[in-house]
Amino acid sequence: SRSLSLAVIPGDGIGPEVVAQGLKVLTAVLPQDVKLETTEFDLGAGRWHRTGETLPDADLEALKGHDAILLGAIGDPSVPSGVLERGLLLKLRFAFDHYVNLRPSKLFPNTATPLAGRPEIDFVVVREGTEGPYTGNGGSLRTGTPAEVATEVSLNTAYGVERVVRDAYARADSRPRKKLTLVHKNNVLVYAGHLWKNIFDRVGREYPQVTTDYLHVDAATIFFVTQPDRFDVIVTDNLFGDILTDLAAAVTGGIGLAASANINPDRTFPSMFEPVHGSAPDIAGQGKADPTATVLSVALLLRHLGFDAEAARIEEAVAADLAGRDGTAASARTTDEIGDALAVRVAS
Amino acid sequence: SRSLSLAVIPGDGIGPEVVAQGLKVLTAVLPQDVKLETTEFDLGAGRWHRTGETLPDADLEALKGHDAILLGAIGDPSVPSGVLERGLLLKLRFAFDHYVNLRPSKLFPNTATPLAGRPEIDFVVVREGTEGPYTGNGGSLRTGTPAEVATEVSLNTAYGVERVVRDAYARADSRPRKKLTLVHKNNVLVYAGHLWKNIFDRVGREYPQVTTDYLHVDAATIFFVTQPDRFDVIVTDNLFGDILTDLAAAVTGGIGLAASANINPDRTFPSMFEPVHGSAPDIAGQGKADPTATVLSVALLLRHLGFDAEAARIEEAVAADLAGRDGTAASARTTDEIGDALAVRVAS
Ligand SMILES: CC(C)[C@H](C(=O)O)[C@@H](O)C(=O)O
Ligand SMILES: CC(C)[C@H](C(=O)O)[C@@H](O)C(=O)O
Repeated sequence: SRSLSLAVIPGDGIGPEVVAQGLKVLTAVLPQDVKLETTEFDLGAGRWHRTGETLPDADLEALKGHDAILLGAIGDPSVPSGVLERGLLLKLRFAFDHYVNLRPSKLFPNTATPLAGRPEIDFVVVREGTEGPYTGNGGSLRTGTPAEVATEVSLNTAYGVERVVRDAYARADSRPRKKLTLVHKNNVLVYAGHLWKNIFDRVGREYPQVTTDYLHVDAATIFFVTQPDRFDVIVTDNLFGDILTDLAAAVTGGIGLAASANINPDRTFPSMFEPVHGSAPDIAGQGKADPTATVLSVALLLRHLGFDAEAARIEEAVAADLAGRDGTAASARTTDEIGDALAVRVAS
Repeated sequence: SRSLSLAVIPGDGIGPEVVAQGLKVLTAVLPQDVKLETTEFDLGAGRWHRTGETLPDADLEALKGHDAILLGAIGDPSVPSGVLERGLLLKLRFAFDHYVNLRPSKLFPNTATPLAGRPEIDFVVVREGTEGPYTGNGGSLRTGTPAEVATEVSLNTAYGVERVVRDAYARADSRPRKKLTLVHKNNVLVYAGHLWKNIFDRVGREYPQVTTDYLHVDAATIFFVTQPDRFDVIVTDNLFGDILTDLAAAVTGGIGLAASANINPDRTFPSMFEPVHGSAPDIAGQGKADPTATVLSVALLLRHLGFDAEAARIEEAVAADLAGRDGTAASARTTDEIGDALAVRVAS
């Protein structure tokens, strides 16, 4: 019999609620012969308040032993901005070399979009996850004085760019439309921009069947709202990917539906799966959170581990559930009820 | 009699066409006793191809003698990415210390927006113009090899942040809603982010009547499409401002209507006014470009120089012209015809 050892980080706010539904659906969809073992990790605002720890070495070590990590949400207004983001979430992504931050965006029928005319939207953003402006490189001098200088350094390496660009080409090649768009700002950020563009062009010569395109990040935001159907696969840096995927979520039914995977394709470390949304402390504990983004993240997890049929069942269940909603249905059902409905669908 | 000495940089692509309309409307609206003197500067792709120059010292010196600069658009695919942007456009913004990059966004009645339900949109972005990731700081090592490392350094100073934050508070204070939103990413870019947030909070104590708000840039893009009416004045850094203002333009009738002002509030150097759109080489010379963004930039120019009534006349003329358009009218009229119509309106 097979086994799946899953590290679970419920985290803060609505994190525990949505993770519970993700696990419910995972349990319902897994083949009988797969033994699911979960280990919960107490990480986030609560732990930090109690112990001052964000992600101690012992936890990092223990996380390593798992096949994958499911994370709910991290962050609370009571913790100074940056402490948990840098000390926990980004630390995980960097320590486990999650260089492919995968964020699919699909406008399901019958879901709300702020865009008039309901364009077809079905693209995936491959966001670099271990470099760029996210490296924590920088500092401040004469902090808090009128003479303060603060820097942020975006670090980009051929090593880091090439591996994520290769991943993106492979993904584009596996999709029917075979189109890959690089998003950067190479007319201003010329050093990083040219590195990205040169590698993008060079690797592209190995994929003559993939249509390529380059857009500045500012122009890309325009197309996200005016012509989102022009996108198939997008590859971009850590910061641009952060911005674009929130916008993508907004135009495809909102952040309540946006799933993400932090993947280490080399499988040296466990990959991590999390909804794009945050901890939403204002609605925590009220059963109001939509667990769909977490459930879709579980589908990405299953696909990463080779359970393709199970991943597809979850995605079909979500599509069917969304098709049955009207504008108000999501709020009419509790977090638990949506999880139950999805669990029933994947099991049947 | 008064005089207005204007430096004109038509630039590339549709630049000359739209600038011609801007000047036409400017001439029509200026009081009789104001003598308008224009000096055209041959800068852009053509000049670079002929001489290899982007912005020589002599031109910079000559530009300094003017009350303001009107710029059409810069850029052509025949010029390597970054050459004209860094060597001309950004060089001007930096040399003339245009630290307030002002970009109003208003959804006029009857103009096309990709957003369903036509929300009320009337906000202005105060984008920092002389710091951040735009300083050209950075470099690349072992360029073009598999061992390449490329950096981009975002430089932020208390000096630079405080002056633009003060400008934004003053603008918010002068508007009916008196609301100011800071956009940054201070949970990741902690050094620059905390500098911005601390100064924003400190200066805010001098403006108790101004309501303040902070958003991460990724969340801000969501609100731009789901709740744009929550914004009044936004202050943000150079790169985030670049991204957000293209998105803002997209949701308020498109880049053909988005005006911008690169202001040196200290008036040590001439301020520069330009449409947000680029040179659009694909439609250049065909009379297809909408000159409205340039005409609205002329209104910002007039207001900067104290011609408030004339600025308002232009804005009313544009509103009236837009109200008379249907979805297809813009394309049915040539660049010249739209300019003529606006000139007639402001003169009457
Ligand atoms: C919470 C934050 C550090 C994170 C990021 O910026 O990557 C989030 O916005 C995301 O997109 O996963
Ligand atoms: C052309 C480019 C350098 C410029 C910028 O990034 O500032 C443009 O996008 C803008 O917004 O004015």
